[in-house]
Amino acid sequence: MSSRIPIMEIFGPTIQGEGNLIGSKTMFIRTGGCDYSCSWCDSSFTWNGEQKSQMLTIDEIYNELTRLGTNGVDWVTISGGNPALVGEPMSELIAKLHSEGFKVALETQGSIWQPWMIDINNLVLSPKPPSSGMNPDLIKLAEIIEKYTANINSDNIDNRPQRKLVLKVVIFDNEDFEYAKYLYSNFSDIPFYLQVGNTNIAECDENLNIVIERLEWLTQKLIEEESMSKASVLPQLHVLIWGNKRGV
Amino acid sequence: MSSRIPIMEIFGPTIQGEGNLIGSKTMFIRTGGCDYSCSWCDSSFTWNGEQKSQMLTIDEIYNELTRLGTNGVDWVTISGGNPALVGEPMSELIAKLHSEGFKVALETQGSIWQPWMIDINNLVLSPKPPSSGMNPDLIKLAEIIEKYTANINSDNIDNRPQRKLVLKVVIFDNEDFEYAKYLYSNFSDIPFYLQVGNTNIAECDENLNIVIERLEWLTQKLIEEESMSKASVLPQLHVLIWGNKRGV
Repeated sequence: MSSRIPIMEIFGPTIQGEGNLIGSKTMFIRTGGCDYSCSWCDSSFTWNGEQKSQMLTIDEIYNELTRLGTNGVDWVTISGGNPALVGEPMSELIAKLHSEGFKVALETQGSIWQPWMIDINNLVLSPKPPSSGMNPDLIKLAEIIEKYTANINSDNIDNRPQRKLVLKVVIFDNEDFEYAKYLYSNFSDIPFYLQVGNTNIAECDENLNIVIERLEWLTQKLIEEESMSKASVLPQLHVLIWGNKRGV
Repeated sequence: MSSRIPIMEIFGPTIQGEGNLIGSKTMFIRTGGCDYSCSWCDSSFTWNGEQKSQMLTIDEIYNELTRLGTNGVDWVTISGGNPALVGEPMSELIAKLHSEGFKVALETQGSIWQPWMIDINNLVLSPKPPSSGMNPDLIKLAEIIEKYTANINSDNIDNRPQRKLVLKVVIFDNEDFEYAKYLYSNFSDIPFYLQVGNTNIAECDENLNIVIERLEWLTQKLIEEESMSKASVLPQLHVLIWGNKRGV
């Protein structure tokens, strides 16, 4: 029997709207299922039962990417849900994408380590702040960071493709910001991104000013926070452009 | 007599709104004078005679940064005008900033090489597209790229701090996009950023939708352009947040 992965949606070509690859061309593969249930999750359909995932083989996933048209796209981004729930089949998918010339980015909250993570070219760990209602295990997060970065340091030896790890924290309020400060103080050698939280934006035009006001608030907080000299603040570019529409 | 640099404004702490350092904390030093006069220049006060520059010593510049408050700021960004018009005194300023623990970014159109450029940690070259009314010398641009990158490759030997070169092209229309495509095809191994053009935005609220529409247009162009797989599209974050206000 072929390896299968629970898939919620596959879309693109589009751009990455968040984090260190903001504005880059990418396809998206969104897996189903999550070990978290964040109160403000913008992809809650991946775990709340509203929509069923499809168990797809590696070939079926790749064929769907091809059907959508991957010419001129540099990255495939795997997101969720939490794609770290997927075991060995993910390793096969990553190998397939690499063999077809793609770089592979993956986004996860950093609650589960998988050995295939060392093959991810851009690993975004986004521990969830207090407003999510979750309580991330920071020992586990530190373990994942250690395992991935230990492997980066051996790049000169095994000649793997370029790899990068970043931390990204979504901020809704002052308490979230304090949490990000605490994380930053523990992982200050890792590129660190603060991201404006958003939820329930159906149409860009209606709520654009609210998103911008939140962005201004967070930017001002970061500017005034002397302890976070190397952190960056970023919007969700796709939300600014398209609102919270699916599939873009 | 002390070395002096023509300064238009010094401001911060704020964030970098553009290019690969988008969202990072930085101070800005804006030099006066430009060898170009782009039709849509958003800093035309640096060269159109509307405002005079002040000839400041390195110490005076540094004291002003300190007065503004540089705690918790990682970068100093030197912009213009065209800061590449400044000769040896720039070398002294960069050395001073490095000795005080700052990383130094510099933005220039890539029309003039200066030996001090090899000490810049993040060099943004932004050749001006047809809508500017300028006609960049691409042989000169290629020379600058070659000189800077030749030096990056020797980083392992002389142990300089991290350095990076990126290209950034402002896009107003289809002709500008074609120009960017041509540049990309010649320099595809250099990180390449397309930036939405803007001009005369006094208040964010009034014209925000226009900026977003332009961003959507440019994003769609890039998504559909198969030849530019590694290019990125970015807004001007500071314009989204604050409009075209000075000093932020």
